[in-house]
Amino acid sequence: MMQVSRVPSDPMLGRTYDDQVCSAARALEIVGERWTLLIVRDALFAGARRFSEFQTSLGIATNVLAKRLEGLVANGVLEPRLLEQLPGRYEYLLTEKGRDLAKVIVALTEWGDAWASPDGPPKVYRHADCGTPVKLQMRCPEHGAIEHVVATDSPSRGRRRARRTAGKSSAASRAAG
Amino acid sequence: MMQVSRVPSDPMLGRTYDDQVCSAARALEIVGERWTLLIVRDALFAGARRFSEFQTSLGIATNVLAKRLEGLVANGVLEPRLLEQLPGRYEYLLTEKGRDLAKVIVALTEWGDAWASPDGPPKVYRHADCGTPVKLQMRCPEHGAIEHVVATDSPSRGRRRARRTAGKSSAASRAAG
Repeated sequence: MMQVSRVPSDPMLGRTYDDQVCSAARALEIVGERWTLLIVRDALFAGARRFSEFQTSLGIATNVLAKRLEGLVANGVLEPRLLEQLPGRYEYLLTEKGRDLAKVIVALTEWGDAWASPDGPPKVYRHADCGTPVKLQMRCPEHGAIEHVVATDSPSRGRRRARRTAGKSSAASRAAG
Repeated sequence: MMQVSRVPSDPMLGRTYDDQVCSAARALEIVGERWTLLIVRDALFAGARRFSEFQTSLGIATNVLAKRLEGLVANGVLEPRLLEQLPGRYEYLLTEKGRDLAKVIVALTEWGDAWASPDGPPKVYRHADCGTPVKLQMRCPEHGAIEHVVATDSPSRGRRRARRTAGKSSAASRAAG
């Protein structure tokens, strides 16, 4: 496996997670960069759309925020739309891909609530229809809510790897299972 | 809100997410740094314990890996244990806090599977007991699996903020409701 080192000035995650054949790693290429998920959180749960709204909420340097918004647009998480009332200015709307990050944010929040929130949860996520607090659950179609999961290579991935490594020595499979 | 700028040489997330009163932000202080969640992924789902195992799987520079392991130990996500057969060397075991990150990793994986995996999912997460593929679901106790959630200030958070901002002008609440 290629040895890669960090690029301190502008660490594009894609350049260093590229070797990782894993959807979690690919997700982190897109949303793992500093502040990115908090921008999505504000868009999803605080109604933020404009540059100034994200800036007020996050308090980050404007050049960093501009770069993150640009990245999220380039990756199809946000969609820019010209503001009619402010010519030349944009607002940023979540795409379906962006809205689909809700579970990632709720998962991080639940973990933070449980392990890094000495004063209790600052926010509560509720079902939009009835207001009842929601929980994220790992579900098995056979057994309902479960705790313990294992990861295995998907059948298609196994075939691809078999083709790729045919004829050369293959690293031992690291899949738990 | 304080304006903070990025520290390029060693961006400690804690220093810049500190102002964010949000469990997702607090979670990202601990696990949002580059490679951190992939280290936890390897510990959780690929049985990695030793420095060399993480290094082989991730292919990152050893100094970066050493720093990440140190941070995860300092934050109580991993626990070092001396190896009997290799005096002076450690293995790194997940704590309960670390194992509890499974849903975060599964959430990122599901999103990556859906949006950033043109060849199909490389890994499948399965129920450890029966092998059936699992899904992460947002659940309302009243309505079962749901799609749409909103965030509100928790009652305790509302009281804390009221105390803190009493007597000075308060920023408009940004909670979606």
